[in-house]
Amino acid sequence: MTATPPRHQVERSKARAHYERDTIHAILDAGRLAHVGFCVGDQPYVIPMLYARDGDTLLLHGSIASRLMRELGKGIEACVSVAHLDGLVLARSHFNHAVNYRSVVAFGRAIAIEDPQQKAAALVRFIEAMLPGRAAEARSSNARELAATSVLRMEIVDASAKQRSGGAHDSGDDLCLPHWAGVVPLRTRAGHPVAEPDLPAGSACPDSVRRLLAREGHHP
Amino acid sequence: MTATPPRHQVERSKARAHYERDTIHAILDAGRLAHVGFCVGDQPYVIPMLYARDGDTLLLHGSIASRLMRELGKGIEACVSVAHLDGLVLARSHFNHAVNYRSVVAFGRAIAIEDPQQKAAALVRFIEAMLPGRAAEARSSNARELAATSVLRMEIVDASAKQRSGGAHDSGDDLCLPHWAGVVPLRTRAGHPVAEPDLPAGSACPDSVRRLLAREGHHP
Repeated sequence: MTATPPRHQVERSKARAHYERDTIHAILDAGRLAHVGFCVGDQPYVIPMLYARDGDTLLLHGSIASRLMRELGKGIEACVSVAHLDGLVLARSHFNHAVNYRSVVAFGRAIAIEDPQQKAAALVRFIEAMLPGRAAEARSSNARELAATSVLRMEIVDASAKQRSGGAHDSGDDLCLPHWAGVVPLRTRAGHPVAEPDLPAGSACPDSVRRLLAREGHHP
Repeated sequence: MTATPPRHQVERSKARAHYERDTIHAILDAGRLAHVGFCVGDQPYVIPMLYARDGDTLLLHGSIASRLMRELGKGIEACVSVAHLDGLVLARSHFNHAVNYRSVVAFGRAIAIEDPQQKAAALVRFIEAMLPGRAAEARSSNARELAATSVLRMEIVDASAKQRSGGAHDSGDDLCLPHWAGVVPLRTRAGHPVAEPDLPAGSACPDSVRRLLAREGHHP
């Protein structure tokens, strides 16, 4: 008898698999865009969505008119995947080319948050997940806006992380080939902010943006 | 009677939806990492995978020992999503915060490529999709490596693209608020390459990497 492995068990490259909460949270917190999957019959859908982590739950949001939000909010099984591509690993052989990455695959069921205060708090978390410190720099949502927004909360029931870092793993026979091998790191970077043309003249770039740029070595 | 919309019809923000092949191909060609979804019963799975586009098909690859590749290669319905996050759109209100992005959601069924020559050609496309010009700089796959690799080809049966660009859309009432609004562009950039320590001294950085860095304004 072969037991079916749990849905979040990594089957390949097990040395790259992690199940610790801290690792999973760190990878989730480093991202803004998730790919959210669900099934309608045997038809899978994978939709890119912004997300925010709140403890062991993921928050998703969209318009109340969204088919996606209605479908997901029914409490069907969902799978949320977040991945960061960290580098191109160039080996001496095609076969050993790889990428460095960090990824999380999380499973659970989403339910709609109905309470307006919880909804408002969730929307603040979205702004903060997008850009820390930004929520205090803009107008909070009013009752009409809250009513137009659907917020889903998915408790992470099962999750796994997978990551690769480091250099190329060429086999011994290939080491004498005259081919370059190494890693080209990749990173998502913020560029210089583009202010709206209808801002009053001399409007200062806000602290949230300054901090983001300072972390990346820009000086706006 | 309400007709069920086709699976790839964008239901929300229809002004952002595109169905033209050129738009879809351009967004796919700008990426390396896809999120591949499929259903096993009512359980969705979304797995990050490298991909390459070949005409109107997407190529996916993995180990022949991979549960994912076996499952997908049965020809079940798959959904492949590729998204690029291009900027943070900071509005005067929380509600109008947004992101700039380009995304494609593609539907089809994957089948395994068995022919060794087709498989080898597909693997070359993967290397080229990762880094143009790289395939000629490394050793091609041998028969043993080809046998260990599973390559799937998914014809794109239905697909849609969705994208947002430009600035914040604040409502008139909010324009007088004392909050900054604008866009922080985001871009994935390559950093300086890290050569393997076991390369012969003085090994030159290959042309593929030089071209990538030159496009980004580096001078290695």
